[in-house]
Amino acid sequence: MNNFRFWSPTEFVFGKNTVKNVGTLLKKYGATNVLIHYGGASAIKSGLLCEVENILQNEFINYVKLGGVQPNPLDTMVYKGIELCRKENVDFILAIGGGSVIDSAKAIAAGTPYSGDFWNFFQGKVTINKALPVATVLTIPAAGSEGSPNMVILKEKEKLKKGHGNPLLRPVFSIMDPELTYTLPANQTAYGIADMMAHVMERYFTQTCDVETSDRLCEAILLAVIHEAPIVIDDPCNYSARANLMWASTLAHNGVCGMGREEDWATHGLEHELSALYGVAHGAGLAVMFPAWMQYVYTSGIDRFVQFATRVWGIEETGDKKETALKGIQALKDFFVSIGLPVNFEQLGAKKDDIDKLISTLQINSGGTLGNFRKLDMTDARAIYEIAAK
Amino acid sequence: MNNFRFWSPTEFVFGKNTVKNVGTLLKKYGATNVLIHYGGASAIKSGLLCEVENILQNEFINYVKLGGVQPNPLDTMVYKGIELCRKENVDFILAIGGGSVIDSAKAIAAGTPYSGDFWNFFQGKVTINKALPVATVLTIPAAGSEGSPNMVILKEKEKLKKGHGNPLLRPVFSIMDPELTYTLPANQTAYGIADMMAHVMERYFTQTCDVETSDRLCEAILLAVIHEAPIVIDDPCNYSARANLMWASTLAHNGVCGMGREEDWATHGLEHELSALYGVAHGAGLAVMFPAWMQYVYTSGIDRFVQFATRVWGIEETGDKKETALKGIQALKDFFVSIGLPVNFEQLGAKKDDIDKLISTLQINSGGTLGNFRKLDMTDARAIYEIAAK
Repeated sequence: MNNFRFWSPTEFVFGKNTVKNVGTLLKKYGATNVLIHYGGASAIKSGLLCEVENILQNEFINYVKLGGVQPNPLDTMVYKGIELCRKENVDFILAIGGGSVIDSAKAIAAGTPYSGDFWNFFQGKVTINKALPVATVLTIPAAGSEGSPNMVILKEKEKLKKGHGNPLLRPVFSIMDPELTYTLPANQTAYGIADMMAHVMERYFTQTCDVETSDRLCEAILLAVIHEAPIVIDDPCNYSARANLMWASTLAHNGVCGMGREEDWATHGLEHELSALYGVAHGAGLAVMFPAWMQYVYTSGIDRFVQFATRVWGIEETGDKKETALKGIQALKDFFVSIGLPVNFEQLGAKKDDIDKLISTLQINSGGTLGNFRKLDMTDARAIYEIAAK
Repeated sequence: MNNFRFWSPTEFVFGKNTVKNVGTLLKKYGATNVLIHYGGASAIKSGLLCEVENILQNEFINYVKLGGVQPNPLDTMVYKGIELCRKENVDFILAIGGGSVIDSAKAIAAGTPYSGDFWNFFQGKVTINKALPVATVLTIPAAGSEGSPNMVILKEKEKLKKGHGNPLLRPVFSIMDPELTYTLPANQTAYGIADMMAHVMERYFTQTCDVETSDRLCEAILLAVIHEAPIVIDDPCNYSARANLMWASTLAHNGVCGMGREEDWATHGLEHELSALYGVAHGAGLAVMFPAWMQYVYTSGIDRFVQFATRVWGIEETGDKKETALKGIQALKDFFVSIGLPVNFEQLGAKKDDIDKLISTLQINSGGTLGNFRKLDMTDARAIYEIAAK
């Protein structure tokens, strides 16, 4: 097990009707002038935005609003947010939405007190040493951004999708009401499921030895998600399944699953190019790329894939490790199919002919190498895209 | 699943040679005048106390020392600590040790800024609304106090052992070097293992339905502990086993295993009387009382006991739920025996004839009722002590 630091200070306020606490929580954390950041029509249509505004008005908390964040959140929105925060002397950002809104809020939070271009953080040129506090009202369980220090932003013009993180960006509080997710359509629900599972699997597949405690944690989250997923697809207003999934998605990405172990993240790198090029949902891209990645790398750590097959998918060990490992990968793929996720380029709407394009931006974004479970170069990346394109 | 709040802001600094960070961390969290609180000879003999002192001196951080905390930490030591902190204007408490030292530090932290008797907190007469910050250098993985808001103190004269908790008492940081636990003797190691498992099981056995995510987390911690325990008993300097156990013990009691579910805590109540009366180690008492409690209550929630048997102990379901449940309880008992723990009164050094005494203090401490999985009165408690005394 490797040395590690774990710091997850977010206050999670979880359950039915917890949105009503938003005013008290904002005051507790010193907010006086809030930017409410949100996405599209759903926060308005559901009445959630209106509810939050009413609470803030009743508590005499000033706020301005900035809506319109889209999936794969854009740098252009971040610039707009930074300008607004400076102009309005905003001291706190409240994100209402899923990962895209929260990530956009985090980028604005880091960019507002910084005099240069916020993209410098993503390019690794500058370290974030100050940020406005961010809090969230989560409406989509998927990205885990409500409990993580990470964010992903798409530079629109160049179609560059890059991730960055800093402990200062961990939300100070996150309100999580599973009932807010009842209206999520089946496809978005499934994308979220792929995303949370991917967050665990990026950590699970490691070459670090002797990490039984975090192995078991990873498996616990995967088992819970696999159990709840079909229930929620079948019965979108099942509170218990929505609730278990929502909490699992946070634990999948607040860092605890990765403590003491080297993480991988090759698949996220591969996927980012797909959503940058085609605008596909991140979770959909992950469902396509994860089994492809596994098929390419499993021989580099067969015992771990056997463990995945037996402990997560309940596959009997036959003595033939390769066979067991491949059954585990197939079980994941079958599971994705069973909840309506795409598992190849065609189903995703991606084209084999675009692999050159994908590789050329991946080369820029990754610096030419990806992952840790097996170190991948662009030849490997091409081979994995080709498996996915089959 | 019930509504919940989860807030675990402790910064965990985990791994080999992490004690060297103690000065930097104390400065980061604003310590200028520190009370170093510790137990007996082992912190001195191992050189750990000396190492910490050297670091503080090199960083020009003032400190005073108070050693001599004993297992089942005493109110008399807490009063001494409060007096010292006031006299020396201490603004930060650094606990070096296991749960007893940390709990004593927490009580001093809460008592110092409070003008009345700190025992009022434990009697529920007053709420803690201010406390000195506490940090820890953990040397015994067991109590989970390094990541919890809880403390347990023994009122010496009356032999009353009571627990209390407040979010303000969560340590601001905890340094956890598994190598510091190499010198723990086998019996203390085993007591710690019983303690961490008990912290999970007090949460696992619930009547709250639909808590798959936290069920799986509980099972994950138990499985990891069960895997590492025999290794560490056999090979005390096995880094990986020590490390996995140490991290598991924190996760067992930082609260995450209990989110969304009603917890039980009857067994802790029953055990506290044993350690108060006989001075036995808390973990030893828990190893005796948990199987006895299970045997008494299992029919009140047989499906959960079947789940425990099958998922944690790998017992095949036979169709006869009672049989499966009892096999799970027996597996726990066998496991405790296998790592040298006592499982009945005789092995613990407790006497059947003292049950009246145990019940009379339990009546005072519990107010006459215990637990949630099955609500127990003093007749039930007596019956459980009698099972343990057989």
